[in-house]
This record gives sequence, structure tokens and C-alpha cells, in this order.
Amino acid sequence: MKAKTNLTMLCDFYELTMGNGYFQTGLADRICYFDVFYRSVPDKGGFAIAAGLAQVVEYIQNLCFDEEDIEYLRSKGCFAPEFLEYLRTFRFTGDIWAVPEGTPIFPGEPILTVRAPAIQAQFIETFVLLCLNHQCLIATKSNRIVRAAEGRPVAEFGSRRAHGPDGALLGARASYIAGCSATACTMADQHYGSPATGTMAHSWVQMFPDEYTAFKTYCQLYPENAILLVDTYNVLKSGVPNAIRAFKEVLEPMGITKCGIRLDSGDLTYLSRKAREMLDEAGLTSCKIFASNALDEYIIRDLVRQGARIDSFGVGERLITSRSEPVFGGVYKLVAIEDENGTIIPKIKISENAAKITTPHFKKIYRIFSKDTGKAEADLICLHDEEFDFTQPLELFDPDATWKRKTYTGYEAKELMVPIFLGGELVYQVPDLQASRSYCQRQVDSLWDEVKRFENPHNYYVDLSQKLWDIKQRLLNSHDALS
Amino acid sequence: MKAKTNLTMLCDFYELTMGNGYFQTGLADRICYFDVFYRSVPDKGGFAIAAGLAQVVEYIQNLCFDEEDIEYLRSKGCFAPEFLEYLRTFRFTGDIWAVPEGTPIFPGEPILTVRAPAIQAQFIETFVLLCLNHQCLIATKSNRIVRAAEGRPVAEFGSRRAHGPDGALLGARASYIAGCSATACTMADQHYGSPATGTMAHSWVQMFPDEYTAFKTYCQLYPENAILLVDTYNVLKSGVPNAIRAFKEVLEPMGITKCGIRLDSGDLTYLSRKAREMLDEAGLTSCKIFASNALDEYIIRDLVRQGARIDSFGVGERLITSRSEPVFGGVYKLVAIEDENGTIIPKIKISENAAKITTPHFKKIYRIFSKDTGKAEADLICLHDEEFDFTQPLELFDPDATWKRKTYTGYEAKELMVPIFLGGELVYQVPDLQASRSYCQRQVDSLWDEVKRFENPHNYYVDLSQKLWDIKQRLLNSHDALS
Repeated sequence: MKAKTNLTMLCDFYELTMGNGYFQTGLADRICYFDVFYRSVPDKGGFAIAAGLAQVVEYIQNLCFDEEDIEYLRSKGCFAPEFLEYLRTFRFTGDIWAVPEGTPIFPGEPILTVRAPAIQAQFIETFVLLCLNHQCLIATKSNRIVRAAEGRPVAEFGSRRAHGPDGALLGARASYIAGCSATACTMADQHYGSPATGTMAHSWVQMFPDEYTAFKTYCQLYPENAILLVDTYNVLKSGVPNAIRAFKEVLEPMGITKCGIRLDSGDLTYLSRKAREMLDEAGLTSCKIFASNALDEYIIRDLVRQGARIDSFGVGERLITSRSEPVFGGVYKLVAIEDENGTIIPKIKISENAAKITTPHFKKIYRIFSKDTGKAEADLICLHDEEFDFTQPLELFDPDATWKRKTYTGYEAKELMVPIFLGGELVYQVPDLQASRSYCQRQVDSLWDEVKRFENPHNYYVDLSQKLWDIKQRLLNSHDALS
Repeated sequence: MKAKTNLTMLCDFYELTMGNGYFQTGLADRICYFDVFYRSVPDKGGFAIAAGLAQVVEYIQNLCFDEEDIEYLRSKGCFAPEFLEYLRTFRFTGDIWAVPEGTPIFPGEPILTVRAPAIQAQFIETFVLLCLNHQCLIATKSNRIVRAAEGRPVAEFGSRRAHGPDGALLGARASYIAGCSATACTMADQHYGSPATGTMAHSWVQMFPDEYTAFKTYCQLYPENAILLVDTYNVLKSGVPNAIRAFKEVLEPMGITKCGIRLDSGDLTYLSRKAREMLDEAGLTSCKIFASNALDEYIIRDLVRQGARIDSFGVGERLITSRSEPVFGGVYKLVAIEDENGTIIPKIKISENAAKITTPHFKKIYRIFSKDTGKAEADLICLHDEEFDFTQPLELFDPDATWKRKTYTGYEAKELMVPIFLGGELVYQVPDLQASRSYCQRQVDSLWDEVKRFENPHNYYVDLSQKLWDIKQRLLNSHDALS
């Protein structure tokens, strides 16, 4: 691992002006609860994938202001000297709960909850959001692309179009959790174990006197991993014939049948079919065909439907930037505070836009799985200390259209959020990336196909318990909401 | 400054497999020329803004493999031991030329040129591209937004929706070069001097018994910088009246008239007009109105046209992700190699897609300014050692429609690319961010309004010299292109 950059100062400036304000008005240690949740699924999909928690954990553990930071803040001329002194020993002493990386998540439900003294809880807002928003975005997009490929491996190839170094590195990380099988990003392999892959650029081919020599040389160097880029000049007239010649002259005598070609331009359906014919006629039936070039879930779905003979996809800019929707709209909202006696006072943020009204209080979530099918049927959001007898039938209702009710029997209820920090101590073992990837796959498998549609997916049920619904209604209807 | 992360390993894996290949086949030290250029302007605009060079400089200076990197690469089992030994002393010894940050750039012209031994020139591809692609993207988008605001300050507020920590930090940097006046990102101020700004979140208002107390407290704490967020409950019924009361009770007795309110939801034109009336009636004519909430250049242009009474804009997710087009398609292409005698052999990458054909050879660019108007008229791309008598009339022609010719008189020709590294040594003083920002503004001012349109901009002329055009045609028509 390289030296870590301390990211404490990567915060919106208002977290600091508010912190100074809480400090000076005696509100610094007022216990607050904040939820992270998102409001709509990118690309009009049916669900998103949680990712980024590991970087939140790292950030919280490294949280501290050094002398240089304090001096910089002093130079701004707006912070009380006592507040700056206080920052010298600032660290996170609160609690955090979150859904594990790889979990399918739905609009409106908390994916991370913070309980901490006001300054701390407010301060971490910017970084927690940017971490989760970025990786949830890329994981969600990657999972769509992987599903479109219907079992064919998808490699993440987007570093060069990513938004900065972290965009590349953490994007590769998120894409692996969500089901990509490899990345072009060497550092993502070194740091996170997402396997790095790659063969040649057009410049390799241009560096040699001719395409055949470039291919032959590559096969001699990497006989076990010879994947040749065949579109530098002309795929069918030059690239594929030269690749076949190189495979037969170099690999065949060595008894190696594993090899591949990569198409990076043109009509991939047509070219892959023709190339497949040419390879098969030459007896190279084990040769795989890789394809890249501005792919996304829609193009891959079409290629699969049209019978393109592609064995594996490399996906770049449209994955690493989530090009069709590059914003994941996670927000961080105050949902409760504790009074001097430790009593939790729920808080609501109202809005004329109903979708922007928050669900108040300190909460937990259960996911209801059918014991029969193993499928996820609904999520139940309830108060943090609410108890249920899950051996009994469970009636849930639509929080907006409350007459829509459904009773579940033969189900299993699994709590989704797990404790990450308690009293400032890390109590969570961050799984390795392979484990998160397997978990993600199992969880996505537990969703009905209707929820997984790219267009017009079924709305998965996210319901509130009766108690929580009552509290929300009381706050909405009362003057409390305005005071 | 925090400890820097060494980003050497942030490369596509194929840069390393190709490097190993060049090393083993005796091509390691073959001198190569690569150009970075882009093919189309995001959002169908007329030009882009160059940014990201400073991070390329930092990267090149820090380029090195440590023991851990070497051991990781050894574990991959595909690199020759001699190559891994060679990497221990790997550094960049070549030359780099580039256009300064803040320069308006046009499709097809080099924005950075590398001349270096093959392994080095190939190796830096991924990082150079990701740096330039990211910051050119954000600078280009930011400049559009700043132009839409017609002189009203625009602050960058997008950290929480950025693609990872660098997305936030470097995005804030690029937005400042391109004309934003401030950022919410504290670290961008600390590291790059882009001024940090910010006031309060809704949670500040919710933390107090009522909105008025929240506002009054804030005015007492920050009388010199009291900008109050007025939409937590109801802008016109509650927010603005409470803000007026707080300003009059706290600031007026102190003789302070500078203050502001921020609108973050609702119909900004209507609310800003009504709020302006209420503030003016209360005698608070110096109170500024700030607006935020999913803004971009189109919405800001409409607000300005509709006569919204907004003095300053905060722009978040649509700037920091360049949401409408989050990909800047800069590419890195081999344009020449040197033979054993140091003779430059131009190289071309042909394609059935004419837009994807590269312009070969080692080149330089002149921007032609009218002495009369000071406006930029055309760019001339020519051979690196081509000489012109710029005191004479200059005839340029369209490289595609060569009968379209134009003769310039009374012009000044400025070379655009400057040396950055020569023989591996940094020969360029990276300007501070304020200087790049001023330079950008002057350069954008030098463009005709027709080029600056958001829709259907005039195509700025980017022409080739006759010599360069001839070489390109010869390569296109000759068998050289295919061999």
C-alpha cells in the first residue's frame, strides 16, 4: 500500500462554519442522527448496488486535523480560537450502521446511519456522500452491464476516461464488486485484488514493420495470453488473417490452443461472426473473440440478441463515468436528535416536493425473503428498537396508498444494516473484494426478474412499520415540522 | 501539502505488457512521438478548455516503481526478470510539449505531445489521458456555466456528487481555472487556492428550536458573512421574513449591510423576485440573493433571460460530473517514430471512420490573431521545424475541402504549445491557479461570439500547413499506411 492521503480537509466549507457555530453555541455534543439515502435509481432501473463503505471506514479511522490544517483554517479568519484548539484532538467517537457493499438498495431507505455529537455527525457529511455516491453509481451501472452480458465476462477498461485517479481506481473497485471479472487498472489489482488484464494497443501494431510481425512477436512473448488487436488496419482483410497465421506458426507448435482476438471498432455483430467463421475454418475453435468500443448495457444486450459471436466484453467510458446518468443522488439528512435525557426526538425535513420529504427517526431495515423461492419480497423500515414476531404472518402496507396491503407467510426477515463503528471503534471486518462480489451476486440473484428489467422495472416494495408511519404522519401534520 | 500518493501503478496493464515486449524485442529505446488530442467538443459546443497539465507534471516528476510494485508485478508471472530490474531505475527522460491550462482547444489539434523512448512514451498514456480528460471536461463545462451567468459569480458546490475524492478536489481546481469564483471544497482552497465558501445546511436550521433562532445565531456568529438558507420550511412565509428579522436585529445595529439569502428549491425566478421585493421593502437593498439546486448553463441562461433576481449561483452535480456529457474523449496516438539515424518517420492510424484518422508527424500549432480585433481567427498545425514569414499574408485552406481558402493579413501568430519537459527535466514553471484563470478568461475573450454559442456554434478553423497536409495525404494513399 502507498502512503495514504489524509482526506479530513475534503469537506464542504460549511461543515466547518456550522461546526464552529455548534461549538460556540453549546450544541457541539448534542447527539444527532443522520441517514444517507437516495431518491431515484439511475437509468430508471429497479435497484442500485451499495458500494464505497470500505473507503468511508478508512476515512473515519484517519480523521484528524494536523498543524497545517489548523493554520490554514486560522488564516480564514472566521473560526474561534477555541474551536481550532478543539479540532486538534477531533476524532470520530460516534456510531455508524450501514448496509454491506454489494447489497441491492432501494430509494428512500437508509443505507448508512450516523449517530454522533453534532459537530462530528455534520462534519463527515461531504466525504461520506462523495464516497457512497461515486461507488454506488459505478457499481449500479456495472451490474447492469454485467447482467446484459448474460454470463459472458465483462472487463472494466475505463481508466483513461475516469474523473481523476480515484475515479479510475475506486471505479474499478466498485465495478468488481458489482460483477465485472477484471479491470485494465493495474493499481486496482495491486490495492484491491480486482484482477488486472490487458494485451496491446494499436501503437504496438504500428511499432513493428507490419501487423503480422507485431502479432508473431506478441505470441512469442506471451504464448499463454495471446490476445491480438485486429483492427489497426482492416479486420477481415488483414487483422484476422495475420492473427490466424501468428497463432498457427507460434502457438500451434507449442500445443497451445487458448488464444484470442479483440475487435475495437466497426460493426461488432458482423465482424465477430465473420471472424468466428475464419477462425473456425482455420481450426482455431478455441480462439476467443473479445469486443470493446463504447459499449454499454444496451449495446451489449443488442449484440447478444443479434447473435454476435463475442465471448467477452471490455467496457470503458460508459461504465467508468456511468455516462447515461453520471450522478447518484444520495443525500445526508438529519432524522433525529437526542435531548439532555437521551430521549430521541425525531426530525423531519418537509418539502412541497413529496419525494423530498424525509423519513424521520433512528431506524433499521428488514428484508423479507420468501422461504419458498428465496426471493426478496419487500423491505420493512421500522424504528431502531421495534420488535416483531417473525414466526407470525406479517402485514405490510404501501406508505403512500395505505389501502394496498399484503400479508407475508413463510418468510424470513434479515436485518440489512450492520454496526460499523460503535463509540468510535471499528466493529466491522470489511470483507475482501471477492467476498463482496460473491455476496452481491447472491443478493442480485435473490431479486425477481421483474425488478431487474432495464425498462419499466417492477417497483420493489419499501414499506414503513405502522409505528414509524404514525410518527411520520404526526410530524407532517403537526407544527413540530415547522419548528 | 499532504503526503503525495505515488501514482505510477495507475496505468492500464497493457502499458506494462507492451513495455515488457518492447524491452525484450530491442524496441525499448526507439524514440516515439505521441499526440494527445480530442475529437469532438462536449455538449456540441464550439471549443474546450485545456486543464490538468499541472497534475501531469507532478505525475511525471514522481514516476517510479518501488520494491512493492516490482514484487507485485513479479507475482503476475508474465514479466521478464530483466524487465523488472529495468523498472527499478525507470524514470521519464523524454520531452513533453503542451498547451497551457486555460487555453481554448479545438478538435483534432494536439494539446500535448510526447517524444520519448518507446517504453516511457507508451507507459504514461493512461495517466496523461485520465488527467487531461477529467480536467478538460470539468473546465469546459464550468466555462459554459460561467458564461451563462453573464458576469454573476458562480461557485462550485459539487464535492458530494463527485466521482471520488480526486473528482471533487481536481474538479474544483479545473472549475476555478475556467472561471468559477469559489468552491465549497475546503481542500481545493488549501491545496490550490481556489477560494472556499459556504454557509449552512438545512440541518443547521433544524438543530435550533426554530428558524428565526437558527438565523439569529448564525448572524451573531458570522456577522460579516451571513448568508442564510431560507427554504427549510417555506421560503416566502417563513424563510425570508425570519432572515429579514435576523438581519435587522443583529446586523443593522452593527452597521453591517452586506448579507445574503440562499434559495435551494422551488421556482427560482418567482421566489427570487418575491424575495427581492420583500428585502427591498425592508430596506435590505444590499442583501444578495444566492441560488442553487440542480443548476447548469441552460437553467442559468433561462433564469437570466426571465429576469430572476439572482446575484450569484452555486452549481453542484451538473458541473462536477459534467452531467450532460461526462466523457471527454481525449486520445493518445502514435504519430511518428525515429529511425536509428534520428530521422523522423511519420505514422498514421487509418480508419474507415474519417474522424478517427490521425494527423501524423511531430508538429506545432500557431493561433492566428487579428491585429485589428485581437480575435482568434484560425489555428495552423504544421511540422515541428516548419518556418513561416508571418510578416507576409498567410493563406490557409480547409484540410477536407481544400478549395476553401482564406488569406490572412494584419495578423499575429502565437505558438500554442510550450516545452514542459526536455530530456526528462522540467523546464516549465506551472503558473498559480489565479494566473491560469486570468489567462483562460483572456483567451476565451479572444474568441468570436459565434464560436461561443451553446447551440450550433461556428466551426473554428483548424488547418494544416501544405507540407503537413501533403505528408498526411501521401501516407493515406500509400502502402505505408498499411505496413
